[in-house]
Amino acid sequence: VDLGHSLPDTSRAERCGRPEVVFCPGKTPEQIAGLMRLLAEKHGAALATRATPEQAATLLAEEPGARHDPLSRLLTLGQHPASAKPWQAGVLSAGTADQSVAAEAAGTLRFYGWPVTEIRDIGVAGLHRLLARLPEIRSCDVLIVVAGMEGALPTAVGGLVQRPLIAVPTSVGYGAGFGGLAPLLTMLNSCASGVTVVNIDNGFGAACAADAILRLLLARSAD
Amino acid sequence: VDLGHSLPDTSRAERCGRPEVVFCPGKTPEQIAGLMRLLAEKHGAALATRATPEQAATLLAEEPGARHDPLSRLLTLGQHPASAKPWQAGVLSAGTADQSVAAEAAGTLRFYGWPVTEIRDIGVAGLHRLLARLPEIRSCDVLIVVAGMEGALPTAVGGLVQRPLIAVPTSVGYGAGFGGLAPLLTMLNSCASGVTVVNIDNGFGAACAADAILRLLLARSAD
Amino acid sequence: VDLGHSLPDTSRAERCGRPEVVFCPGKTPEQIAGLMRLLAEKHGAALATRATPEQAATLLAEEPGARHDPLSRLLTLGQHPASAKPWQAGVLSAGTADQSVAAEAAGTLRFYGWPVTEIRDIGVAGLHRLLARLPEIRSCDVLIVVAGMEGALPTAVGGLVQRPLIAVPTSVGYGAGFGGLAPLLTMLNSCASGVTVVNIDNGFGAACAADAILRLLLARSAD
Amino acid sequence: VDLGHSLPDTSRAERCGRPEVVFCPGKTPEQIAGLMRLLAEKHGAALATRATPEQAATLLAEEPGARHDPLSRLLTLGQHPASAKPWQAGVLSAGTADQSVAAEAAGTLRFYGWPVTEIRDIGVAGLHRLLARLPEIRSCDVLIVVAGMEGALPTAVGGLVQRPLIAVPTSVGYGAGFGGLAPLLTMLNSCASGVTVVNIDNGFGAACAADAILRLLLARSAD
Amino acid sequence: VDLGHSLPDTSRAERCGRPEVVFCPGKTPEQIAGLMRLLAEKHGAALATRATPEQAATLLAEEPGARHDPLSRLLTLGQHPASAKPWQAGVLSAGTADQSVAAEAAGTLRFYGWPVTEIRDIGVAGLHRLLARLPEIRSCDVLIVVAGMEGALPTAVGGLVQRPLIAVPTSVGYGAGFGGLAPLLTMLNSCASGVTVVNIDNGFGAACAADAILRLLLARSAD
Amino acid sequence: VDLGHSLPDTSRAERCGRPEVVFCPGKTPEQIAGLMRLLAEKHGAALATRATPEQAATLLAEEPGARHDPLSRLLTLGQHPASAKPWQAGVLSAGTADQSVAAEAAGTLRFYGWPVTEIRDIGVAGLHRLLARLPEIRSCDVLIVVAGMEGALPTAVGGLVQRPLIAVPTSVGYGAGFGGLAPLLTMLNSCASGVTVVNIDNGFGAACAADAILRLLLARSAD
Amino acid sequence: VDLGHSLPDTSRAERCGRPEVVFCPGKTPEQIAGLMRLLAEKHGAALATRATPEQAATLLAEEPGARHDPLSRLLTLGQHPASAKPWQAGVLSAGTADQSVAAEAAGTLRFYGWPVTEIRDIGVAGLHRLLARLPEIRSCDVLIVVAGMEGALPTAVGGLVQRPLIAVPTSVGYGAGFGGLAPLLTMLNSCASGVTVVNIDNGFGAACAADAILRLLLARSAD
Amino acid sequence: VDLGHSLPDTSRAERCGRPEVVFCPGKTPEQIAGLMRLLAEKHGAALATRATPEQAATLLAEEPGARHDPLSRLLTLGQHPASAKPWQAGVLSAGTADQSVAAEAAGTLRFYGWPVTEIRDIGVAGLHRLLARLPEIRSCDVLIVVAGMEGALPTAVGGLVQRPLIAVPTSVGYGAGFGGLAPLLTMLNSCASGVTVVNIDNGFGAACAADAILRLLLARSAD
Repeated sequence: VDLGHSLPDTSRAERCGRPEVVFCPGKTPEQIAGLMRLLAEKHGAALATRATPEQAATLLAEEPGARHDPLSRLLTLGQHPASAKPWQAGVLSAGTADQSVAAEAAGTLRFYGWPVTEIRDIGVAGLHRLLARLPEIRSCDVLIVVAGMEGALPTAVGGLVQRPLIAVPTSVGYGAGFGGLAPLLTMLNSCASGVTVVNIDNGFGAACAADAILRLLLARSAD
Repeated sequence: VDLGHSLPDTSRAERCGRPEVVFCPGKTPEQIAGLMRLLAEKHGAALATRATPEQAATLLAEEPGARHDPLSRLLTLGQHPASAKPWQAGVLSAGTADQSVAAEAAGTLRFYGWPVTEIRDIGVAGLHRLLARLPEIRSCDVLIVVAGMEGALPTAVGGLVQRPLIAVPTSVGYGAGFGGLAPLLTMLNSCASGVTVVNIDNGFGAACAADAILRLLLARSAD
Repeated sequence: VDLGHSLPDTSRAERCGRPEVVFCPGKTPEQIAGLMRLLAEKHGAALATRATPEQAATLLAEEPGARHDPLSRLLTLGQHPASAKPWQAGVLSAGTADQSVAAEAAGTLRFYGWPVTEIRDIGVAGLHRLLARLPEIRSCDVLIVVAGMEGALPTAVGGLVQRPLIAVPTSVGYGAGFGGLAPLLTMLNSCASGVTVVNIDNGFGAACAADAILRLLLARSAD
Repeated sequence: VDLGHSLPDTSRAERCGRPEVVFCPGKTPEQIAGLMRLLAEKHGAALATRATPEQAATLLAEEPGARHDPLSRLLTLGQHPASAKPWQAGVLSAGTADQSVAAEAAGTLRFYGWPVTEIRDIGVAGLHRLLARLPEIRSCDVLIVVAGMEGALPTAVGGLVQRPLIAVPTSVGYGAGFGGLAPLLTMLNSCASGVTVVNIDNGFGAACAADAILRLLLARSAD
Repeated sequence: VDLGHSLPDTSRAERCGRPEVVFCPGKTPEQIAGLMRLLAEKHGAALATRATPEQAATLLAEEPGARHDPLSRLLTLGQHPASAKPWQAGVLSAGTADQSVAAEAAGTLRFYGWPVTEIRDIGVAGLHRLLARLPEIRSCDVLIVVAGMEGALPTAVGGLVQRPLIAVPTSVGYGAGFGGLAPLLTMLNSCASGVTVVNIDNGFGAACAADAILRLLLARSAD
Repeated sequence: VDLGHSLPDTSRAERCGRPEVVFCPGKTPEQIAGLMRLLAEKHGAALATRATPEQAATLLAEEPGARHDPLSRLLTLGQHPASAKPWQAGVLSAGTADQSVAAEAAGTLRFYGWPVTEIRDIGVAGLHRLLARLPEIRSCDVLIVVAGMEGALPTAVGGLVQRPLIAVPTSVGYGAGFGGLAPLLTMLNSCASGVTVVNIDNGFGAACAADAILRLLLARSAD
Repeated sequence: VDLGHSLPDTSRAERCGRPEVVFCPGKTPEQIAGLMRLLAEKHGAALATRATPEQAATLLAEEPGARHDPLSRLLTLGQHPASAKPWQAGVLSAGTADQSVAAEAAGTLRFYGWPVTEIRDIGVAGLHRLLARLPEIRSCDVLIVVAGMEGALPTAVGGLVQRPLIAVPTSVGYGAGFGGLAPLLTMLNSCASGVTVVNIDNGFGAACAADAILRLLLARSAD
Repeated sequence: VDLGHSLPDTSRAERCGRPEVVFCPGKTPEQIAGLMRLLAEKHGAALATRATPEQAATLLAEEPGARHDPLSRLLTLGQHPASAKPWQAGVLSAGTADQSVAAEAAGTLRFYGWPVTEIRDIGVAGLHRLLARLPEIRSCDVLIVVAGMEGALPTAVGGLVQRPLIAVPTSVGYGAGFGGLAPLLTMLNSCASGVTVVNIDNGFGAACAADAILRLLLARSAD
């Protein structure tokens, strides 16, 4: 399928488990609406990331099943069915300014049909807040931990739980934060072994990694 | 327990699933031997990473169950029992110079009792080599993909399979590779969604992340 | 010739094969129009790069032979005659967001009289798309490969074809892409030998390098 | 005083409270011995930092009151009298590999006459170790917190105590640690307000900052 | 307490001596007003940093005790009582463009009840200005030294006084200043021992460090 | 073919025109000898780059047709036949310290059967030396220009000739040269349009790019 | 003199030869006008750099002797008398986009009373333009050479003349120019010995350095 | 003249005032001896920089007029005649570890026949030392100021004197000094206008810049 402006990769779902997703920066509202409809027809639902309200407007006006969330910047048309098993992801975030990225991760996982536990404002400068939520955290199957500034939360969590943990640095901060470089380096050098990292502000990518783990769980539990 | 030089974290296995591991740089052969014995007594087996032959010598001389592999630089005392389920990790590497890091990942997983499929020399400059191994790759439950130079292999693999994928950049290269910075950035910016990344040359950390996924599988399959 | 604001290098065509080109940032619409007319008088046609619609307006209003393309940001006055031989350049791009840079490369080559094959949306996260276009790619004489994000496409292409290959990193991406640094380093460290690289977003420069190869071909084929 | 090779700043004690200290890199054993004797004559005791055993040898051979500690690399000739008040500094370190830097800080403070509480191996990947030592930590008047790798310890401590806290990043780590850049950025971006930072591996500088606070305490308590 | 958008850490004052402070970037005027009221109720007064006039407007309209200073960007609701002892902080700045950061430091300290001596425009390119103010500087108990451009002022001051000194690099400058990186590195490498450093433009953090020292003084003077 | 330690890509010659080459760092003399023999059997001749004398020793001792050049660090076993056409590459270098990289480029091209014109010591600080060699330079079909320090030579040459030009930055320099970063950036930002760049010290890669152009010339001249 | 917002350093002229200059960024039109009047009263004339038209407006409206040049962004009130000797500075620039910085250098020197020779558009990609102007260049007493992009002009000039040469990198360029970092590194690594460098876009600083040389000439010629 | 390994630029003295100088890194003792003899024959004396004792040995053994200074690493054969005028350069350095670079600058100037005033150990952490030497400093005609660590000395000096000032950053320091990057940035951002900068550790280049100024003085004083 060639839309003129794009060649959507319609076989990605078969190869990788998840269909292609629309990355909005640089695209017009019309291009986005066209792509979303094509993907939703093929896969039953469609997702776009980093959509501004202006970019979302065309699809929202034309499709009653379209939704746009300004915090996460996710635009959806329909939704995948809920997972057959109640396994769930935890999305933890350190500060209030990290919530946009955390919402992108949580919204993506919910779009794919997974229950999500969101825990906010548990940065390591107030460890009691993290420790108070440990039972909830430990009940999740996979964890996404979002932090800007010094980015220490994934290390603290990684030392307390037995779960796959995906760390997301955010560009929250200033000065020697260098647009998210500081928490990125913190997470890559974490002394909690087993922490893995995605790009700065990439809540979507972290959700895809969590989704891959949850899908594997589903596939193997049927064995 | 205080060894004078170190305070091993002997409760880590209960909290995180994996006992503490000895990071050898800066430690004497005697300190390493003492730590390994203490950890093996507590947990049944012990692992040390980045051990030079000189650092390994004391333990090898004193303990018949000790093993040192010069390629992976892993030093072990005993080994964890084989997993109850035949789930396995794939460790893929791009070039021959990346094999030391790949061996660290594979050796760590075997120490934890998981079967490992190792596939070498499948860099993207010769895609036919990757495509020829796809069935083997797809049969793995979780993938570790190791690459230096331009670090493109995780993206290519990530676009072909439905599995959790942990990318490991290596310091193999020169000039504008900047000690592994180039493949690290490549992997963080991968356009294959769901790829997660660990520190440069951190084969051990990738193995821990894979181990966490496989342990989760084991735990949930019993549900 | 001294225009007051600029001293166009009118002997460049004799020395280097290609006449001087107008780089628009920082110039007024009037300065651009003046330079374009002077260059077109001297060389039969003139080219300006990175022209905004505002910068192009004066020339477009005054010269019926002027054309401006908003995607590539190229402004032309006339065009060089078609090449005597049907040799052609391939301009390949990885994602839809890379098309502006690819269009600058393709438009520049067409302005110089060369046929161009454009192939879009063949990023390595969906290798089947690249493999499906291999015959077309192999039929080109010289290749320009444009990619942002992780920048892996030139390595994959370079391992499949026998052609001079010029890689163009783009600033498409975010976070640890660092404005195009990530794909730039990827391309410089490519394990496909023989890949050469130009500046970030420099589609024009890549076209000049391809033009130099095609001109050499023309010159030597007459020997 | 001009020693030919150096012009010691013998009035520094009057101006800044602490006499000049010998920084050993690049100096010969004889130059170091000469400087130390001159400073000890003037101030009653002398301190040199980053002294190798070879650099320390001349002074050790000639002066019975000289001491060299290989872990901290401090060389001393005599010692300042114990402080009139029992105020003390805490020197906390995250991992065993950070102990050389911690020892430089602790040894410098002891040379200046302050009691020091050293607490090792309390990295945030095992928070129980930190929490278990809180009463000791809270009993200190000023804290120096030393950490390499991801450098998160100062943030965790800073969120638990009411004390001036000086953070020291170390070059312990590899890959994306970039020789201590990662923990340096972590500490500069700490979300625990009031954390201040010194140069990578600069245990001596942290001790000087702690000494200035303790001296102020002494001066004001007499008011 | 959960405000929906934030979970203020209301126990911070007990743990760390200072209550939580509102960091305004990314928050709405209503969220800021809500947080300030909650914190003021709990602690008697509340502080917000980096507040734009737009962000301050809601609180200013609703609370007669609210104040906003456009230079320091501080928003306050009430104020802490004056300290029982007349100890004071000095806030020194190098150039006129550094005054916004210096004002943030000074305003924060005054909010906490400390007298502040502010000394402006004493950059090292005119040393006579610094030397002329030495008596005033030496009469302070703790010093905050703010500088952009080449950032040399803390080193010059640190070599002249016996006081704890907290250096604040600012983003004032251009070109190879790299947004404050140049003065940050200058301060971290200061040859005046005992200088400690906070993040670029972090006047608030420097004030917190000074406040911790002054509080310690108060606590110990009562011993 | 699997040698245990390596899986040589024996079909690369068919795909890319040039057979695989052995990159020596990290390989043993025996591994290198084994790979060279296998590649020479398949392709008639074999090339290894960055070979130390120690790495070359085994092959030199066993194969009379082996040659090692300490300046270029190239190790060869046999040689490709001379090209059917006398087209040639020019390898220009700026300073005497750049000759090792220039020799790698020239030696690789000669191994592939192309005549090479080498021109040394024509750095832009003495432009008369460059201008004196212009006729020779212009008689070449493709140019490789090698420079360290400030890396300006490719720009000067690129403004004087009508030929494809491949620039090679070298790590020659010190201080703010940052291991070749300075000339790399210089070349990427060259204001001579059409200059393309390879990795720092990558004389081999530049030769491959030149070889691809010369092979294309050969292929098309037969059309 | 304390203007409330600033403390002008009115003794700088006696110490350094040049009176203080107003750096406009961050100052209001009224503050600038006040400072300019104070400095002009004291020194006979006053200079401000980086003044926008808005910042210049107040002084222009109030003082008939005020002048503002939008290209150089210099604002002047009066002017220093012409030098007693006809020694002059040459200000050379590589591209048309570098003219703003070159104009700042030339305008500053003219304000100080020196004759200036300006030579534009002589970038090294067209060496004939530089060579044609050599007699003019050689007739100058001191040279300021301004270049962006790859920044090679100072090296080429430095290899042709016997004059003090001050190089000014500009932020002209894109991508791997990194805001002027590329030409800055080029100039610092220049293989033409004796080239000195100022900050990116710092035409004013280069003029001050040239002024210091010319003043010295004047002072010594009277000996 | 072609020595096989090098093509000395024997006309540089006519063009630039100073003959070519031998940069020793990477050259053999024999190549250095050959170059020195050739240059001394042509120009009356010859200079080599960064010569190790091993590299100097051949020339020292063969030529009685050869001298090697291990501190500055300068190797000379003969010397230029003393200048006709007693104008002199000041070479100031901040710390004892900076003396090697300062000695390279001073030795180069003495080789060219200029009297040199050397002032050591006047770093800004002890301003009294700088202020005590001001009369001597002000009596120099041109100043070279050498500093590592935080690199603040040139700014302090530049605010006190009316002389051309060339700043030399050194690689002295550790951690966040990044091999001299910290003092380099400090000097480029100096708020003392008119400071110019050369590469890290480039004492030779600073001496060439000073020599150019002194030669100009000599030339113009004869006018």
